[in-house]
Amino acid sequence: MNARIREILSWYGSDSAGTRANLARMLAHGRLAGTGKLVILPVDQGFEHGPARSFAPNPPSYNPHYHFQLAIDAGCNAYAAPLGFLEAGAHQFAGEIPLILKLNNHDVLHEDKDPLPAVTGSVREALRLGCAAVGYTIYPGSLHCVRMYEQLRAIAEEAKAAGLAVVVWSYPRGSALSKEGETAMDVIAYAAQIAAQLGAHIIKVKLPSVHLELAAAKKVYEAEQIPITTLAERVKHVVQSSFDGRRIVIFSGGAKSDDKNVFDEARAIRDGGGFGSIIGRNSFQRPKAEAVTFLQTIMGIYAGDRP
Amino acid sequence: MNARIREILSWYGSDSAGTRANLARMLAHGRLAGTGKLVILPVDQGFEHGPARSFAPNPPSYNPHYHFQLAIDAGCNAYAAPLGFLEAGAHQFAGEIPLILKLNNHDVLHEDKDPLPAVTGSVREALRLGCAAVGYTIYPGSLHCVRMYEQLRAIAEEAKAAGLAVVVWSYPRGSALSKEGETAMDVIAYAAQIAAQLGAHIIKVKLPSVHLELAAAKKVYEAEQIPITTLAERVKHVVQSSFDGRRIVIFSGGAKSDDKNVFDEARAIRDGGGFGSIIGRNSFQRPKAEAVTFLQTIMGIYAGDRP
Amino acid sequence: MNARIREILSWYGSDSAGTRANLARMLAHGRLAGTGKLVILPVDQGFEHGPARSFAPNPPSYNPHYHFQLAIDAGCNAYAAPLGFLEAGAHQFAGEIPLILKLNNHDVLHEDKDPLPAVTGSVREALRLGCAAVGYTIYPGSLHCVRMYEQLRAIAEEAKAAGLAVVVWSYPRGSALSKEGETAMDVIAYAAQIAAQLGAHIIKVKLPSVHLELAAAKKVYEAEQIPITTLAERVKHVVQSSFDGRRIVIFSGGAKSDDKNVFDEARAIRDGGGFGSIIGRNSFQRPKAEAVTFLQTIMGIYAGDRP
Amino acid sequence: MNARIREILSWYGSDSAGTRANLARMLAHGRLAGTGKLVILPVDQGFEHGPARSFAPNPPSYNPHYHFQLAIDAGCNAYAAPLGFLEAGAHQFAGEIPLILKLNNHDVLHEDKDPLPAVTGSVREALRLGCAAVGYTIYPGSLHCVRMYEQLRAIAEEAKAAGLAVVVWSYPRGSALSKEGETAMDVIAYAAQIAAQLGAHIIKVKLPSVHLELAAAKKVYEAEQIPITTLAERVKHVVQSSFDGRRIVIFSGGAKSDDKNVFDEARAIRDGGGFGSIIGRNSFQRPKAEAVTFLQTIMGIYAGDRP
Amino acid sequence: MNARIREILSWYGSDSAGTRANLARMLAHGRLAGTGKLVILPVDQGFEHGPARSFAPNPPSYNPHYHFQLAIDAGCNAYAAPLGFLEAGAHQFAGEIPLILKLNNHDVLHEDKDPLPAVTGSVREALRLGCAAVGYTIYPGSLHCVRMYEQLRAIAEEAKAAGLAVVVWSYPRGSALSKEGETAMDVIAYAAQIAAQLGAHIIKVKLPSVHLELAAAKKVYEAEQIPITTLAERVKHVVQSSFDGRRIVIFSGGAKSDDKNVFDEARAIRDGGGFGSIIGRNSFQRPKAEAVTFLQTIMGIYAGDRP
Repeated sequence: MNARIREILSWYGSDSAGTRANLARMLAHGRLAGTGKLVILPVDQGFEHGPARSFAPNPPSYNPHYHFQLAIDAGCNAYAAPLGFLEAGAHQFAGEIPLILKLNNHDVLHEDKDPLPAVTGSVREALRLGCAAVGYTIYPGSLHCVRMYEQLRAIAEEAKAAGLAVVVWSYPRGSALSKEGETAMDVIAYAAQIAAQLGAHIIKVKLPSVHLELAAAKKVYEAEQIPITTLAERVKHVVQSSFDGRRIVIFSGGAKSDDKNVFDEARAIRDGGGFGSIIGRNSFQRPKAEAVTFLQTIMGIYAGDRP
Repeated sequence: MNARIREILSWYGSDSAGTRANLARMLAHGRLAGTGKLVILPVDQGFEHGPARSFAPNPPSYNPHYHFQLAIDAGCNAYAAPLGFLEAGAHQFAGEIPLILKLNNHDVLHEDKDPLPAVTGSVREALRLGCAAVGYTIYPGSLHCVRMYEQLRAIAEEAKAAGLAVVVWSYPRGSALSKEGETAMDVIAYAAQIAAQLGAHIIKVKLPSVHLELAAAKKVYEAEQIPITTLAERVKHVVQSSFDGRRIVIFSGGAKSDDKNVFDEARAIRDGGGFGSIIGRNSFQRPKAEAVTFLQTIMGIYAGDRP
Repeated sequence: MNARIREILSWYGSDSAGTRANLARMLAHGRLAGTGKLVILPVDQGFEHGPARSFAPNPPSYNPHYHFQLAIDAGCNAYAAPLGFLEAGAHQFAGEIPLILKLNNHDVLHEDKDPLPAVTGSVREALRLGCAAVGYTIYPGSLHCVRMYEQLRAIAEEAKAAGLAVVVWSYPRGSALSKEGETAMDVIAYAAQIAAQLGAHIIKVKLPSVHLELAAAKKVYEAEQIPITTLAERVKHVVQSSFDGRRIVIFSGGAKSDDKNVFDEARAIRDGGGFGSIIGRNSFQRPKAEAVTFLQTIMGIYAGDRP
Repeated sequence: MNARIREILSWYGSDSAGTRANLARMLAHGRLAGTGKLVILPVDQGFEHGPARSFAPNPPSYNPHYHFQLAIDAGCNAYAAPLGFLEAGAHQFAGEIPLILKLNNHDVLHEDKDPLPAVTGSVREALRLGCAAVGYTIYPGSLHCVRMYEQLRAIAEEAKAAGLAVVVWSYPRGSALSKEGETAMDVIAYAAQIAAQLGAHIIKVKLPSVHLELAAAKKVYEAEQIPITTLAERVKHVVQSSFDGRRIVIFSGGAKSDDKNVFDEARAIRDGGGFGSIIGRNSFQRPKAEAVTFLQTIMGIYAGDRP
Repeated sequence: MNARIREILSWYGSDSAGTRANLARMLAHGRLAGTGKLVILPVDQGFEHGPARSFAPNPPSYNPHYHFQLAIDAGCNAYAAPLGFLEAGAHQFAGEIPLILKLNNHDVLHEDKDPLPAVTGSVREALRLGCAAVGYTIYPGSLHCVRMYEQLRAIAEEAKAAGLAVVVWSYPRGSALSKEGETAMDVIAYAAQIAAQLGAHIIKVKLPSVHLELAAAKKVYEAEQIPITTLAERVKHVVQSSFDGRRIVIFSGGAKSDDKNVFDEARAIRDGGGFGSIIGRNSFQRPKAEAVTFLQTIMGIYAGDRP
């Protein structure tokens, strides 16, 4: 265990040896092992957007084994997916890649301005499947946030008691937020803070824009002249908002986009002190060999390789 | 245990020996034993539509024993029904046919655009009655889907822990879907994916039409030129959407219809790589001797008998 | 145990010895012991309609002991009442008459087109009071039916595990049904079927009228020419709809009415193959001696006495 | 134990020795010990109406010890209060006066035509505090009555299993009742009946007026010529409606009023066969010495002292 | 243990040795040890208002360790925060300062006139983190108050059984209250009473204004001429409303304000018999050295230092 991992683990001093070991498992795995950086492969789009929108651009990805192998081949730190996808491969790939069981999911077959995902897995299932962590999505801003926070409370308590790590996807959304507000600087920082206060070990948010959504917050950002002009500054503010950097915060890649963009974003995350990326569609929606190269380029950025 | 059954069981590697044995029990029973194909007799229409609409066309079918005997005589792989119907015969027919206890049901005495079935049985009852599996219906698209998914999560976890298999009926329905959308290609594929992600071992959906319901999905079907013109192609796409064929997907026969239609559909299911049919009203609403012949014709199609 | 009781018990083969013994206790008690017929005294009107409407016409009936004694003196098979009424006499009358604890009740102090009774007792209380069975009312058609069915599921499972019998009052009611529809032939048959599918051992419905409420059902009744002209025919159809006569179905007497009517109804129930009556207000709202004669006349009809 | 207490206990034959002993504890305590009559001091107004409205008229009553001492000094049978008030004195006054822990409470800081109190204590807490009984308020007529009845069911079952007595405050209220209807003769009798059917050992209602609220009930009161002209007659009818006098029914004093009124009411309660009073504001809102005299005058009326 | 602490503990006679020891731990810690007064540092604003609004004015305060150290350096009696903030330091600062785990929290990303906080921690977590107490916020006046009171009931019962103390933040808010009413004299006194009746050991309210909100209460305040002109008088009335001073009541400092104001308020709290302050933003939003001086000035006021 190198010094950086020991340092990171020191932030989680109240956690059990089991949970700390599982955090270490992810930090010590793959291409970024020992760097304190993480690139995680998440594949929940089959549930969230439907199979064709997710997998048709690269048909081998309909197969759940595909994603295990992609995460292994690319040297990701972990692979995250809902129950069905993990069940379909956890036995065969046991011990080859740390797994994160996503415990709630949401589909787009019904309308909801204030989303409420369904709990689709459990800590017991995560243990059965040999996972290192559980994942859970909250939508701060949704009218159903109380229910989500309370489910997360129970799940996190049970996960910690069982020695698992807790990864929280914190995505502001709901009838009181504008579309632009969902990625506003103040709102994303707030979302990271909420996840941290709820006891997340690893926090996952979207990259924030320069927009400020809430009037009371805007006043403070202006009065205190918090620097948020560049993406790296905004990442830095999110990291600061996550217990002054004492919680691991990673950022999502979002919809498929231009590779150069993604690499620039990774550089900004790195320069702002972020801990890495969680990259789904941008990786699995292209042929596997390309995806491996693509992911390793990102890992190289985090590892500080000369580009 | 022949190679095909071993192959199918290999897809369920994360499951316990108990669950795998129960899947094998169904795959190794009846006329289609060992073929990897399934024809299941489901009789929940008494609850779902009322007794006269279900049984008056063939009055002996009011008797719960009738359906056990029909499934046995026709050589079905399993018989599925609600608590009352199974209780009324499980003792007498113990060991003669694998049973599936349907754990939720819905009636038509009240209106609901967004249906929510009632949980009417339990895993414990399924064990008491000697069942091989539990069945559960979800209505993706219903505003009550969160509740259904969460009930299924709990039931599936308990069933797996008890060594039972989990069969999920996935029927899109709800205020955000058009009538045509309930069997749209994209929606049915999505419904199969959701069932698979929720941890179903066996998925049951309706046969999809060529219609595409969701704008975002339609764009992808067209861009990727997914072939969905023939019924066999559509079945193939549903199988692909069910973890690339690594989950058993069977199709429902729907309302009573012309025999030729049903046989044509079975051929399309077979040609598309589907795993079989679940046929209720088309079988039990005719005299038993006819029903046996009818079911065996379908089984013959799946078994590859020369027609 | 005579042959008829053995035959009836054979329909409940999946049940435990305890539950079967309790069914036998009721079938083997009182004036109709061994006939396979049942006349049960139910007294829940104090809760359902208020004390004065229930007991003022015959003031001794305010006293809970009155009803125990009436059921005993008349030779009923069992006495059914809510928690308070049973608690007030179970100790004194222990072993003198099989008891049914009614586990849910409804009052008329608030309005509800879609009724939801409150659960007012439990299986544990039924055991404490030495009951042979629990009773539970469902209102198929009510928007709250899911909650009622799910409560019944849990109660029935617990009761069966404890060796009790389960009696279900199935009363269609709710905003989607017309007043006439609550006793329509198709609706009553459907209500009996639902109770049977939910696992009831004994089903209690109202006597059906010749009216047909649901369009889809009406078409079938007409197409199949199901005979429903006479009351006996309608009773027979209800019995058929209760697993082809393999579940005990009894009929309620309803509001106080002319004795001749009640006797005629009992004859129709007998002739249609019904299993008996549950008679409350018509018996306890008259002086006890008269009530005993009245109930014994009805029992005589079921026993096949020459009238 | 004198004959009258033995007689009263005989009505509770289905209860455990523990519960019967606790009923006896209250009946055998204080000035009215052995008379079969009860005067209970209830102090929940701090929660229900706020502290100033409750205690400012007699400031020493802000102190929770005040009420223990008042109940002891006056010779009440028991003292009833919410968790906080009992916790604040149960240790010091252990064994000096039977205690009743009120398990639900309601405040007036929010509006609700259909009240729903919050559960604020538990049977376990009642045991910890050495109580003889638990108290629970239901509002028959409230749209939330199902929730209240079901909470009471669970609480009463647990209390009885723990050997405690159950006291039910039954206060009709809700959007379907007129203001006058809340104390109407038919409605109060119905409320007493519901409490009795729910398993209450001691029932507490308001004194009924001569008004009849419900059309169906009114018809019966008139047809049967139930005498309800005098207050004593109305009390008698409430007692009759409480299992023909086989349940202890006591009456509330209501808001502070003229002493003569209160004494007249006590005489009517006594003459009608009521079991006593529960008197809060009329006692603790005056200086303690006066309150003791006042309460003992009432007790004298019940004890049959020459006035 | 000095006499004053023994006296305070005597008010909590019904509590276990464990809970009394934890109350003593807080009363015997820091600058005010043994005075019977308390100054507590609460830091939940990151969750309640967002990170920038809370911590940007003094950026080191983004770090969770900052607040532990501030509370220690200033000599506070205890430090209160949500799960995440405590987890992030409880291990390192074990034994240095009594901790209070705030078990529910609320954010401002969604609108709610009738607030409902989410439960974000548990008694088990409080024990894991070595806390002396749990904290819980109720909003009397909110339409969701029943849910909050019932959650608090369960939490307080569990906390007491585990030997923890219970601190209740009681903040009137909701659609039936005017903005001014939230700090009205009658409403604050009522809020303190409710918290006390719910079993709080320590009650935290806002400082009341001279406004009277509720008509029925206003009448009594005027009739009884309750003195509420000065802040000290109002504090005295709140203390009286908290079981006549037999419960510890402390007051919040509210938003950042002029130091002189805060000191004047502390003097009024002291003069009115209040037990101290809970001061968050006014302390942690300034440089630490200044904050320590500021907090110690307040403590000096409570300790009776000559100013």
